[in-house]
Amino acid sequence: MLEKIKNPSQIKSLNCNDLVVLAADVRKRIINVTSKNGGHVAPSLGATDLIIALLKVFDPLEDRIVFDVGHQSYAYKILTERNERFDTLRTYQGISGFNNTSESSYDAFSVGHSSTSISAALGICLANEMNNKKGHCISVIGDGALTGGMAFEALNHAGHLQKKFIVILNDNKMSISKNVGALQHHLSEMLTSKSYNYLKKQIWDSSEILPTKIRRHFLSGAQKLEESMMNILVPNIFFEDLNFKYVGPIDGHDIPRLVRILNKIKNNMEGSILLHVITKKGKGYPFAENQVSKFHGIGPFNLDTGYINPGKNISWSEAFGNKLCQLAENNKKIVAITAAMTDGTGLTNFAKKYPSRFFDVGIAEQHAVTFAGGLAIQGIKPFVAIYSTFIQRALDQVIHDIALQKLPVVFCFDRAGIVGEDGATHHGVFDLSMMQMIPNMTIISPYCKEELEQAMEWAANYSEGPVAIRYPRGVAPDDENYQKLEYGKSQVIHNGENLNIIGIGEGVNIAKELSEIIKSFYKFEPSVYNLSFVKPIDNALILKLIKDKVPVITIEENVLRGGVGEYISMLLNQHNIKVYPFALPDTFIPHGDTNLLKNINNLSPSSIFESIKEKILLNYKTIT
Amino acid sequence: MLEKIKNPSQIKSLNCNDLVVLAADVRKRIINVTSKNGGHVAPSLGATDLIIALLKVFDPLEDRIVFDVGHQSYAYKILTERNERFDTLRTYQGISGFNNTSESSYDAFSVGHSSTSISAALGICLANEMNNKKGHCISVIGDGALTGGMAFEALNHAGHLQKKFIVILNDNKMSISKNVGALQHHLSEMLTSKSYNYLKKQIWDSSEILPTKIRRHFLSGAQKLEESMMNILVPNIFFEDLNFKYVGPIDGHDIPRLVRILNKIKNNMEGSILLHVITKKGKGYPFAENQVSKFHGIGPFNLDTGYINPGKNISWSEAFGNKLCQLAENNKKIVAITAAMTDGTGLTNFAKKYPSRFFDVGIAEQHAVTFAGGLAIQGIKPFVAIYSTFIQRALDQVIHDIALQKLPVVFCFDRAGIVGEDGATHHGVFDLSMMQMIPNMTIISPYCKEELEQAMEWAANYSEGPVAIRYPRGVAPDDENYQKLEYGKSQVIHNGENLNIIGIGEGVNIAKELSEIIKSFYKFEPSVYNLSFVKPIDNALILKLIKDKVPVITIEENVLRGGVGEYISMLLNQHNIKVYPFALPDTFIPHGDTNLLKNINNLSPSSIFESIKEKILLNYKTIT
Repeated sequence: MLEKIKNPSQIKSLNCNDLVVLAADVRKRIINVTSKNGGHVAPSLGATDLIIALLKVFDPLEDRIVFDVGHQSYAYKILTERNERFDTLRTYQGISGFNNTSESSYDAFSVGHSSTSISAALGICLANEMNNKKGHCISVIGDGALTGGMAFEALNHAGHLQKKFIVILNDNKMSISKNVGALQHHLSEMLTSKSYNYLKKQIWDSSEILPTKIRRHFLSGAQKLEESMMNILVPNIFFEDLNFKYVGPIDGHDIPRLVRILNKIKNNMEGSILLHVITKKGKGYPFAENQVSKFHGIGPFNLDTGYINPGKNISWSEAFGNKLCQLAENNKKIVAITAAMTDGTGLTNFAKKYPSRFFDVGIAEQHAVTFAGGLAIQGIKPFVAIYSTFIQRALDQVIHDIALQKLPVVFCFDRAGIVGEDGATHHGVFDLSMMQMIPNMTIISPYCKEELEQAMEWAANYSEGPVAIRYPRGVAPDDENYQKLEYGKSQVIHNGENLNIIGIGEGVNIAKELSEIIKSFYKFEPSVYNLSFVKPIDNALILKLIKDKVPVITIEENVLRGGVGEYISMLLNQHNIKVYPFALPDTFIPHGDTNLLKNINNLSPSSIFESIKEKILLNYKTIT
Repeated sequence: MLEKIKNPSQIKSLNCNDLVVLAADVRKRIINVTSKNGGHVAPSLGATDLIIALLKVFDPLEDRIVFDVGHQSYAYKILTERNERFDTLRTYQGISGFNNTSESSYDAFSVGHSSTSISAALGICLANEMNNKKGHCISVIGDGALTGGMAFEALNHAGHLQKKFIVILNDNKMSISKNVGALQHHLSEMLTSKSYNYLKKQIWDSSEILPTKIRRHFLSGAQKLEESMMNILVPNIFFEDLNFKYVGPIDGHDIPRLVRILNKIKNNMEGSILLHVITKKGKGYPFAENQVSKFHGIGPFNLDTGYINPGKNISWSEAFGNKLCQLAENNKKIVAITAAMTDGTGLTNFAKKYPSRFFDVGIAEQHAVTFAGGLAIQGIKPFVAIYSTFIQRALDQVIHDIALQKLPVVFCFDRAGIVGEDGATHHGVFDLSMMQMIPNMTIISPYCKEELEQAMEWAANYSEGPVAIRYPRGVAPDDENYQKLEYGKSQVIHNGENLNIIGIGEGVNIAKELSEIIKSFYKFEPSVYNLSFVKPIDNALILKLIKDKVPVITIEENVLRGGVGEYISMLLNQHNIKVYPFALPDTFIPHGDTNLLKNINNLSPSSIFESIKEKILLNYKTIT
């Protein structure tokens, strides 16, 4: 069936049986491609039926569907003229893993981070009204994304405006980790629509037998009464209080029913509407259904067995999790906080071992940070593990609630630098700029597992203010010769001549390789330093650089602007030391293989070598 | 009565009549001091009775009360050993306008921005449990602050944890501007507790006459039923759905009743509790009661007449508002967005003139930005007016939802730079660092009214991506000789010699004065440039600086780290041009008079002059 669908308008003419067949085809395609390319398998399988029903009822060009995060939208991509190219999913210049307006005009808004879709769709809705344009505006949001505060801000505003506006709550009872939050608990306890409807009728019928005095109260607020009665079995008044008309809950895999209800909402309802749809993550692929968390977002897997190669080497996240468990054993004040990323940040074991000292606050980075502040001010030692890209959500809280009060919270920014296939919305390339500008902040950027461990140990005992430790995605390199981490001190990796190379985090590993390349071509070996502490910067190193009077190279996986190289450049400006900062350019980096992206962006040892050959190395003797 | 209170424990022995007298005394003191020093008059008068009741029932050292924003806590400051020093309110080294842990151990958490108190108090609550410490944890939050998403994130988490935890909703039916949001509408429609209580009893009594079939349904879920019935008149199920026990609404100026209910909550209730208190902003000072918005946060006023000197000169905010009205007349696509700062950002007239094109989204900066993105992607032209310090709340949205898609949203950052009396939490000193690191962002920093107007006009017609315009608090200087703003171009203010001074925004005015000082002492006049466009930077200017081979001074009201001076320093590093960047140091700037703070922090013309005399001017001939 899928191969017949060249564009989504063809879906409109299919009957419900055809749609069910189509769903199966689409799922096959998703499983097939992701087994090779990796990706967000479980969310996309879960939303396939809903997406097909949406395309049956709505016109994806005239109507605008904004998918929250966008990792559930593979079926949408496949069915909106991207099936042919779908093999390129998450590869360089291929189909993006999230919705992207520059990829297709079927995508209404570019997404990637959680909880933005209601705001964006509401903006589109208002714009359409101003432009006298037809078309329904729909946000498709997961129950996990609903824990993000900005989703609430948007619901509150939408309820206030009361335009025709549709929010579809795709409730699979879990976000990336197991779901948390009082509201989510409530949602998952909801009874079926059937019993609600039965009861509603019964109550209305019986209201006539109430005593007059009471009945008057009831009838005078008939609408309110109905809402209240609904709440007896269906506690959806949360949304009604926000002035949304609540519809549901309905089975998100029952395509005929979805089509029927979406048509009713489209044609017969006004104002802000919340449709509550229950789906199963991984639906249709038993391996994914049974290991939802593993199949949320993964690398390649075996199609027939569901086997995911766990990888031999320990990742940065695992190294972090292991070390935190160890530190927590001796220090009872240590707690761990995650914003719905228990697995991703390596905290699964910690959560099992120390459940009372583990807090998953939902997709709520802002609350996570200030909550940590409350803990810290009373002498508890919070380690807040958040992906580098997601800490952008809580910058104000880091500045205002933590740094200003010098609270000793330890931030652990996982997936700093280029992350590869998840692309522009997920690269962690702003954190050094963000953190450097904050007074009272200490920043450590480890380059190997041993340095991460020492950094965590040091930070656990540091009580003068916040510490941010940032480390990349992927395997944490071992360095058995790692030296001792000292506050505010850099480390000499190699004492050489003619050129001082300063590595920041992963930049140290690049610096080492670069040094080897130089050595292999020229008759000298440059000095290599590990900056360790990005802030405060090692003044002794700066003085040494001034004294050496040779060019300086800095290497960091962060944007140039506001980064470490820029700062060192300024420090050396008045001393006539030329600084060549290697960092990421002032553009958004797309998705693709990490090494490829580094090479393209002048952050691989060989690309740096090429670019300094003319500038710096021109006057040195080559070996041959 | 007030003079007898040396510490808050003495309040415990007062009877209710005494408490009422005390409240009147405290209000007098607040009005007296703020009439001289300015401050947040209306919020603090509104919360006085509630604070006295809290101090009667709770122990402010063992129990921890976190005030949201903190601008309502003057009575708390006065009654917690800060009455004597209260005259110094908002002056340099005097009492801060917000709660501050470094000022007093009675302050549980430092605040200033909205919607943080539930997160912080919840953290404190959990820490107390871990530390086996007694004490209740209380968040006092306004209905306006409740529109901030992070308050919802925290409620959701608190409801999930179910610790004994108290949130007091101080509902005055308005935040800084008139309140918006569906929830707030609901809250303000609530009927009184009395009729709710009456009805509740009636319904319970009459449930016996229901037919058995129905009654079974009712009684099997007795608790749920009660909650539902409450909602008939009191739609508080919003909070109940979040697993909070709802109490109220009660009159926030009835001290005896407040004391009685707070005692009950303290002694008899468990779990998460939300107490809904209705207060009147400005209570007890008729001028403030009648002009709530004006008396929210103001400068000095006449105690007897309530007269507020409006000031003769037009402020940056007014200039912005006027220009936007003018632009909107000819361009129907222009809309204005504010996050509960209609008056503060100068949008009052726009709101009146173009109500359908004006959006106050509540204290919800994150939603404001992404909502603007949704509008922009459909061809609408949003101007988003947000204080510089508050855009820290929405950095991720600016990066991820706007800049990544190159959406032509215009950000207008009011109160950039040092703001004076509101202090560390309100200075707008990070925005240049934040915006510079974002790809696709254009930044304009006007120094005079004319430049602001041209910047807005230019931005209104620019469709390639987002534009951020940042301008200070206070009076906008006129410059009748202002030249024409050109994309990416700087302006020569004076063509001089020996020294190139580059002003950024208000830094241009400082640069001009500095140049005058230099001229008056030395036999030369330096060159002065207006950078106009911070990003993209004027390459022609950079080439000129390289060619000139004289020292460069940069002046900006932003932190040094990640600022413009650092960037220019890097650009000139390889060309042996010495750059002396003048910017704010790597510390938090306290509250106090703006000029004083600039002087102390080396950002006044005279202080810059002093510091360059030895470094740069040493070799030039003086006039005498």
